[in-house]
Parts: sequence; structure tokens; C-alpha cells
Amino acid sequence: MEIKLKENERIDDLQYKNLKIIQNKDGFCFSMDSILLVEFAKNIKRNTTVIDLGTGTGIISILLSKKVELKKIIGIDILEDVCDMAKRSISLNKLEDKIKIINEDVKNMGKIFESSSFDVVISNPPYKKINSGLTNSNKNKLISRHEITANLEDFIKIASYLLKSNGEIYIVHRPERLVDIFNLLRKYHIEPKDMQMVYPQKSKEPNLILIKGVKNAKPFLKIRKPLFIYNERGEYTEDIIRIYKEDI
Amino acid sequence: MEIKLKENERIDDLQYKNLKIIQNKDGFCFSMDSILLVEFAKNIKRNTTVIDLGTGTGIISILLSKKVELKKIIGIDILEDVCDMAKRSISLNKLEDKIKIINEDVKNMGKIFESSSFDVVISNPPYKKINSGLTNSNKNKLISRHEITANLEDFIKIASYLLKSNGEIYIVHRPERLVDIFNLLRKYHIEPKDMQMVYPQKSKEPNLILIKGVKNAKPFLKIRKPLFIYNERGEYTEDIIRIYKEDI
Repeated sequence: MEIKLKENERIDDLQYKNLKIIQNKDGFCFSMDSILLVEFAKNIKRNTTVIDLGTGTGIISILLSKKVELKKIIGIDILEDVCDMAKRSISLNKLEDKIKIINEDVKNMGKIFESSSFDVVISNPPYKKINSGLTNSNKNKLISRHEITANLEDFIKIASYLLKSNGEIYIVHRPERLVDIFNLLRKYHIEPKDMQMVYPQKSKEPNLILIKGVKNAKPFLKIRKPLFIYNERGEYTEDIIRIYKEDI
Repeated sequence: MEIKLKENERIDDLQYKNLKIIQNKDGFCFSMDSILLVEFAKNIKRNTTVIDLGTGTGIISILLSKKVELKKIIGIDILEDVCDMAKRSISLNKLEDKIKIINEDVKNMGKIFESSSFDVVISNPPYKKINSGLTNSNKNKLISRHEITANLEDFIKIASYLLKSNGEIYIVHRPERLVDIFNLLRKYHIEPKDMQMVYPQKSKEPNLILIKGVKNAKPFLKIRKPLFIYNERGEYTEDIIRIYKEDI
């Protein structure tokens, strides 16, 4: 099948299981966040149904489909052209039978899906509050990075609606929002059960947090060993190299 | 001044600024938790008034009085014989003008102090919920380690009552309670602003969390670089050696 690229688009090799992804050079490009989130979520039960809220170019859905033998992954994004890229990336990787992309606002999930329809929610939501940090002049980047169309509470509220009891949410975010995340998860009856801090180096402050919550679970948080991206010589750590090399 | 030791008591050298502490061999002995909490709290403003909730043998108050030039430290504990040890340790270190020990239930603070009386609350509260983990047959150890006489919510509620607006709380606890701590702090109008994870080694899960909250502050959590106790050879890390060696 021939995949057509639009202006400013390019095909990037994910350097993982021969997967490729179409990205817009001027848009929000995938970063290590998505790869680490999928690695963090790799113990998802087989044959379950997963929804990827704010899927963007589909990177998480595509990686996850190769990491775990799932029944179905639904990717949702509000941006039409980004969804179009995701669909073509799915074709490019021949994953049409596993992943379905829906161009919709996550806030409208209640109109599309019944409550308790999913075993797992996975999400790399926009990190920044409106009016915090630098804003991008490019509209798509703005929506992907800032809480313009949906904020963290919208994402978590919808996740709770979509999840079955004992269903799991996997989320990647910035450390400064950890308190908000924990409070919102509990507000919507999802208990944070597992967490990992990602540090650029062992002498640096963390720049990412990975969190797993379980709907209606009892309190008890397990925190994993820290994940370091680079060693003291500025090379990828063994953990990162292993993530890239790992087979299912 | 001669300090009398009771049966089963011994004087331990804190190996820090010539400080000594009286501990009961069969009771709850100070551990690295207290030393790390004091280090974490070392940027407390000078000439402020601090209350140490659940002071035990007085270890935190004694170390803090040497680390930061404070106006006054009040140490509270429900256990009479432990308070008695703390008072003698304070005499032993000639700190009577800085530290005052009160033998009282932290839940009775409202009867002793007016609200907003303190700049800083510091606490190493009991870590374990009742009926969780092993229980100690020794009554004092039980109260020091388990939430028998006051639980985490009691400690945080009292802390909020005692703190001035913009006053700070410094707390050390176990990672599995992080969600509870964040939720309770917000419930009582204290915003978690600063945190550090303590890992035994860089390839291990954390075993302690250090948290600073500020009363009535705006949300934005800073997470510090990780603190490791041992290096790969099982020796104290440079960070730990520095903490022990550091002068004010």
C-alpha cells in the first residue's frame, strides 16, 4: 500500500520493531515520553481493550500494539490532520486490524462509548496549564502541549467514565503536576497504585513521572526504582538501551 | 551537669557536632530518617519558631537546633518516658534555652497553642496504619511506629491549625503513603511544594519520601534530585557523607 505524505510531513523510523511514524515537521513530534509510557504499561493484561486519549500521531497506540497482544486499541484526538497522520501511520505499519483512530474531543466520549467500556486507558495528555510556560504559535502544537481544549481533570474524569471497575489508567506527565494528578485520580475513584520517576541523570531533578491508577482499588502506592536516561558520560543508560532493544 | 541513665538506656553519639542522645535499647531508636529530614529542612528561615510533632527522643529537635539558628523549638510527644529521655538529652547537649519538650497528645495542641502560632512544623510521624505490617510487642515502639494514638490525618490537621499562613511543614514518610499525604495536605490547605525521594541504591525502590508543604500556597511541586544512601559498592554515597560532615 502506498502512503502519501502531505507537505511538511516526513516518515520517521521508530527504531523499534521496524515501526514507522508520519510526523509533521512543524507540529508536535513524538518524544521519549511516549516510549517510556508504553514501557511502563507493558504488563497490561493480554486481550484487553485499550483507549488512548489524545493519541496525536498515534505513537503510543502503535508502539503498544507491538509490545502487548491486545484485543483492540482506540486512539482519540481532537485534531483532524493529526488523526489523518495517525491513520496513515497505522496503514504504513499494517496495524488496521488492531488500532482504530477516532477524530473527536475526549470530552465527547460519553456520546460515543458507554461507561465501563474499557479495560485500560493510556494517555500522554497536554502537560501545561493555559497561561503557563511558553505558548506555541502553531495551533496544533499548542493543543498538543497545553490544556486548551481539555484539561487534566477532563482527561481523568473521562478515563474514570470509560474504565471498568479494576480497570487501569497509565499516564505520563510532568513532576510539578503530581499533586494534581493524585488528587484528581482519587476524586474520580481511581487509586494511584504504581509510579516511576524519570530522571535525565542521577544527579538531576526528574522531568517525567509515570503513573498507574486502578479504578476502585484500595490505597497503597508502589514506587518503582528510578529510571535514568543518561549516564555520567552523557550516553543512554543500560535501562534505556534495553527498552529500545527489547523484544516482546 | 550529670545526666542519669535509667535501666536499659544508653547514650549514643550522633557523630554530628558532638551531639549525643539518650535512647532506650528496647524502644524506638532514631534512624537515618530523622537526619535526612533535618537535612531536607535546612533552609528553614532563621529566627523562626518550630514545633516538632511526635518528637520521640528529641532527635529532630536536637539536630535542627544545630543546623539552623532558630528562635525556639517545641517538641511534643505523647509518651512520658520518651519525653523524659528527650529532656535529659537536651540537658546533655546544653540546649535547654533552644528546645522545650512537652509531654502531650498532638491531638490536644488546640488546648495549648493558639492557631497560627508557628512558622514551621516538622514531623516524623508513625509510618504504619493500624493493622498493617508487623506490630511491636513493646508499647512505646508500637506508638512510635503505628498510628495508634494519632493517625496521619490528625498530624496534618493539627499542623495546619498550628501554622501561620505561608508557614511550612516538613515531613518524612514511606512512599506507599504519598497519595494520602498529598490529599490530606490539600484537604487542610497546605500545598505540597517540594519533595525528594530517598533510594537505598540507584537500582532500588525508594524507601523514604521527604515532603515540604506551605500553608495557603499555590500549586506547583518541585521534585529534587534523588538521594541515594549507598553506592554500588555498598558504601555511603558522597551525598550522605556530606550530610554527616557538613558544618552549619
